[in-house]
Amino acid sequence: MSEDLVRRMAALAVEVGANVQPGQVVGMGCRPGTEPLVRAIAEAAYRRGARFVDVGWYDPHVKRARLRHAAEDTLEWVPPWYGERARALGEMRAANIALAGAVAPGLFDDVDPARAGRDRLPSIREFTEVIMSGRLNWTVIPCPTPAWAALVHPDLAPEEALARLWEQVAHICRLDEPDPATAWAARGRELKDSAARVNARRFDALHFRGPGTDLVVGLLPTTTFVGGGETRDDGLPFMPNLPTEEVFATPDPLRTEGVVASTRPLDLAGTLITGLTVRFAAGRAVEITADTGQEVLRARAAVDEGAARLGEVALVDSSGRIGALDTVFYDTLLDENATSHIAIGAGYPMGAGAEDAERVNTSAIHIDFMIGGPEVDVFGRTAEGAEVPVLIGGDWRV
Amino acid sequence: MSEDLVRRMAALAVEVGANVQPGQVVGMGCRPGTEPLVRAIAEAAYRRGARFVDVGWYDPHVKRARLRHAAEDTLEWVPPWYGERARALGEMRAANIALAGAVAPGLFDDVDPARAGRDRLPSIREFTEVIMSGRLNWTVIPCPTPAWAALVHPDLAPEEALARLWEQVAHICRLDEPDPATAWAARGRELKDSAARVNARRFDALHFRGPGTDLVVGLLPTTTFVGGGETRDDGLPFMPNLPTEEVFATPDPLRTEGVVASTRPLDLAGTLITGLTVRFAAGRAVEITADTGQEVLRARAAVDEGAARLGEVALVDSSGRIGALDTVFYDTLLDENATSHIAIGAGYPMGAGAEDAERVNTSAIHIDFMIGGPEVDVFGRTAEGAEVPVLIGGDWRV
Repeated sequence: MSEDLVRRMAALAVEVGANVQPGQVVGMGCRPGTEPLVRAIAEAAYRRGARFVDVGWYDPHVKRARLRHAAEDTLEWVPPWYGERARALGEMRAANIALAGAVAPGLFDDVDPARAGRDRLPSIREFTEVIMSGRLNWTVIPCPTPAWAALVHPDLAPEEALARLWEQVAHICRLDEPDPATAWAARGRELKDSAARVNARRFDALHFRGPGTDLVVGLLPTTTFVGGGETRDDGLPFMPNLPTEEVFATPDPLRTEGVVASTRPLDLAGTLITGLTVRFAAGRAVEITADTGQEVLRARAAVDEGAARLGEVALVDSSGRIGALDTVFYDTLLDENATSHIAIGAGYPMGAGAEDAERVNTSAIHIDFMIGGPEVDVFGRTAEGAEVPVLIGGDWRV
Repeated sequence: MSEDLVRRMAALAVEVGANVQPGQVVGMGCRPGTEPLVRAIAEAAYRRGARFVDVGWYDPHVKRARLRHAAEDTLEWVPPWYGERARALGEMRAANIALAGAVAPGLFDDVDPARAGRDRLPSIREFTEVIMSGRLNWTVIPCPTPAWAALVHPDLAPEEALARLWEQVAHICRLDEPDPATAWAARGRELKDSAARVNARRFDALHFRGPGTDLVVGLLPTTTFVGGGETRDDGLPFMPNLPTEEVFATPDPLRTEGVVASTRPLDLAGTLITGLTVRFAAGRAVEITADTGQEVLRARAAVDEGAARLGEVALVDSSGRIGALDTVFYDTLLDENATSHIAIGAGYPMGAGAEDAERVNTSAIHIDFMIGGPEVDVFGRTAEGAEVPVLIGGDWRV
């Protein structure tokens, strides 16, 4: 990739994504291989007046050593300073920038899945809580690395694969627009309009129908689709994900019923989950099967009461830039914005009204998986039981 | 380098250096480029029963962005969780393994030295305090990287330079011995014997004489030379530095007099300090001049009252493996073990008796610089004022 492209990606993360403010501390979450973008983001943040950029690194190879050799009863232990850092970032109203991308796919394939499921790092409960509290302005953006590029474009030579992935990511992130900030503002307005149209219908549930999928996701009385950007609890706007092509909401954790087949593979921090099918009853994932990674996902879904219930339902129409590329990126940030998806685990408070705040699902985990696509249609079920087309063949009908 | 060499270096760090115990948390201090050794150390530590390996990464390029662009009044700020981590490692009686080696020499050459002097990271006060408290079993070992190899061997092609540096480091670390642990145990005994012979003389001061150097370092009544390994406050043995070729002691911070010329360049976290001369009066460094890096060192020496006074004096004879290579490594761990040296800043409590504990120098910094060599002779000054040869032409005379 060119230095200029890296610099523009950094500017997007700092100015449009996290919207870093003068005097802010900026937390980062990164992995080896992302150094060029990390350094460019640090420079952009300091130029914008950041007080300090604290780069947190996560190396999946070090985690692999733990999963293979550490004593069984230590695998859930997390150093207390990890949580202290997260809480302090919240207290300071810090910014946070995380870099997404497949890390080291298949790295844990020869690890006992039950052991892999017990170590949830780099995800930590306190950070999830701080994110959910609305005290951070934060963003997750993709950062191509040679390892990720090799996974997505296995037929290309290493340098070509990396260049091709950067090109795709630049397109997806609208860096090929004259002014990416303006382009994202426009796309944000479109997403807010779509969300408003869905919300106006006050559906009681959404019904997903497609190959292997017949799933009804019950909604709360105040379930609210949001998207196209958020605001911190004090009103500071930011874009939690770049790219973002979704409108998402917090469903009723007690009322999901039926079967759903995942339409894209999911890379769960080194474990590739393919051929996933989940059966829900009374809101709980009571049966999880997969061609690969089944035990790891089962272990995650068992970490607490909320881990087997839905925290998110998201609708993605076909007008976004990711689905059109017809590429599996093996990375949730990109793949979830290619198509409609659901997530088990913690729900976002902003996806429902304050009256239902107590009913939003809580959990230490939040795992998205992709269930949409051109063959999966989405209907809204009204309080009276009628079904109204919402997304048909990927196109909005509301 | 070969994977086997990396694995043996990791085993040396874990088993001989830090002497990691089952159930221990292991902190690490690393920089980008050291990933192969970091991962091998994590594996070796977990195999030995470590509870958790917490790798702390420091990227000098991120620091460079701060030094160039952050607001002046923020440069001394350190996130509170850095200190909390250090204190927690102490409370847990953790192990710690830091990887040494020149990081990115000259990276800060175009940075305002006054600004560079205000940001002391990755060094933090709380970690220095924990190390001095005797609660950690810790080690610092060298880790060759391409950037360091290019600095030490600029005339070789990159791969040859890295291979040559690994070969030198392996030799210096006695990895070419049949059993490095036994070799280090033997060298440790030699160093302890040398220290005992110096201590038996109960010198009042040491007198360094050579080109540009005429320095008298006053000793405390209980100043005690130590070396060849330490023990944690509960008796657990460890080797703080590998390699180690020095015997060192804590001098009287009030009684250094004269002039000293550094005999090797010093890489101070990205700032190369060359041609250094320091004049001391009544224990204080009252004049610091250098061909390069002068202002950075002056700023460091001004951070607190103890920063301009000596915390360490160390004697290195010519029988070690580093001096014989006649190579400047631009890294304190290797260069300080090539030749006698002194350090401004915090003193080690074990370098003096408990009666003098209050007189040991305290500071947030500890910066070693090399003052010995074949042309610099060291004499011991007795209470009566007589001068006794200690190290002449690099050979012990006591």
